[in-house]
Amino acid sequence: SLRRIKASGLKLQLCTNETQATRENFVRKLRGLGFDVSVSEVTAPAPAACRLLRERGLRPHLLVHDDLVPEFAEVDKTNPNCVVLGDAAENFTYANLNEAFRLLIGMEKPVLISLGKGRYYKETDGLKLDVGAYMKALEYACDVQAEVVGKPSKRFFESALAELGVPPEQAIMIGDDIVNDVGGAQQCGMRALQVRTGKYRPSDENHPEVKPDAYVNNLAEAVDIILQQL
Amino acid sequence: SLRRIKASGLKLQLCTNETQATRENFVRKLRGLGFDVSVSEVTAPAPAACRLLRERGLRPHLLVHDDLVPEFAEVDKTNPNCVVLGDAAENFTYANLNEAFRLLIGMEKPVLISLGKGRYYKETDGLKLDVGAYMKALEYACDVQAEVVGKPSKRFFESALAELGVPPEQAIMIGDDIVNDVGGAQQCGMRALQVRTGKYRPSDENHPEVKPDAYVNNLAEAVDIILQQL
Repeated sequence: SLRRIKASGLKLQLCTNETQATRENFVRKLRGLGFDVSVSEVTAPAPAACRLLRERGLRPHLLVHDDLVPEFAEVDKTNPNCVVLGDAAENFTYANLNEAFRLLIGMEKPVLISLGKGRYYKETDGLKLDVGAYMKALEYACDVQAEVVGKPSKRFFESALAELGVPPEQAIMIGDDIVNDVGGAQQCGMRALQVRTGKYRPSDENHPEVKPDAYVNNLAEAVDIILQQL
Repeated sequence: SLRRIKASGLKLQLCTNETQATRENFVRKLRGLGFDVSVSEVTAPAPAACRLLRERGLRPHLLVHDDLVPEFAEVDKTNPNCVVLGDAAENFTYANLNEAFRLLIGMEKPVLISLGKGRYYKETDGLKLDVGAYMKALEYACDVQAEVVGKPSKRFFESALAELGVPPEQAIMIGDDIVNDVGGAQQCGMRALQVRTGKYRPSDENHPEVKPDAYVNNLAEAVDIILQQL
């Protein structure tokens, strides 16, 4: 499906909330699985956060997965004036959470940037709390609202559109997550297809707030429909 | 001040949100400091939780401080159908939080009982996240609302009144925390004095929701006023 989109001359951007690996490693994994993808075709929360940090002169304290740290290599992290929170997994220790909390509560106006707001996810050894749960803990303790830079934030989809160089009305999003993918893309002015695979649940079709522009059974069918209408 | 209250014939109950020690150890510490206090004069979240568990036939999975576990010695903890959360401190590990989360998300209707909802507290080595932050994390991940059994819950103050055997209008609460002490007691129908010591902050006097019946400079002054009016 990816190959057919590219062959048609359409531009393509992969939007992921992956925050346990750099884009380089993410792309390496996809290429290993046979997908023809390059780093510049991936929009991910960490680079979006780096842009935001630069724009606002923020120096982060990182509470993220070890494998994500290289994404922040160019960022000044001395004397931090904000906290960047990702899915830190094993780094979510009592000591690390207290450290991030102390930095935030010591700021005149605490700035908490979260790379996502997922509730939980599944790994081979079971369900795990996702970054959103720890974000809520710090929000409550510090009485602040985090700025979320991953999906479904508008800013995230705007970044992807900027990479593509197209306005939202000329783009279409294909995804399996009713809120993070479909809802986020639509709020940004894009049309959005939901695939009936992956995270899709039949109950999504009665979602109280989000309604995709269309459903498709899978990615191949989405590509069929899009290419037919060119 | 405690001695003067007791000598006057007034009944006394100490209401604490302490969840890092059994009442026995809490009282031992107070007695070591010279206070004449007995276990039956202490109302604390863990015994309140035990009452609630018994009433509702709940079998808890405990995520609490090691030193609190003996309070739950009599409670059936096999095949848990709820999670009891306290200030677990070093027990707030990534693994323990995931374990509590998995139990909750696996229940048809998750039941989360929290021994308090404090944001943070100070220890000699710095500020620490309190149980409320971890409660928020689990609430968000499981889309449930915790039942709080410590202060400021109405149930907690009702327990204290039941121990005293007096109706709320014949009791007066003296405390330093505008929300947990003063707000909680007033919601239960008691009058409440705020002492200008401990957690008290001048900004409390402009609190948008809670207004004590009176301010006193310290506990000794509170006792003076109460004894004068007998």
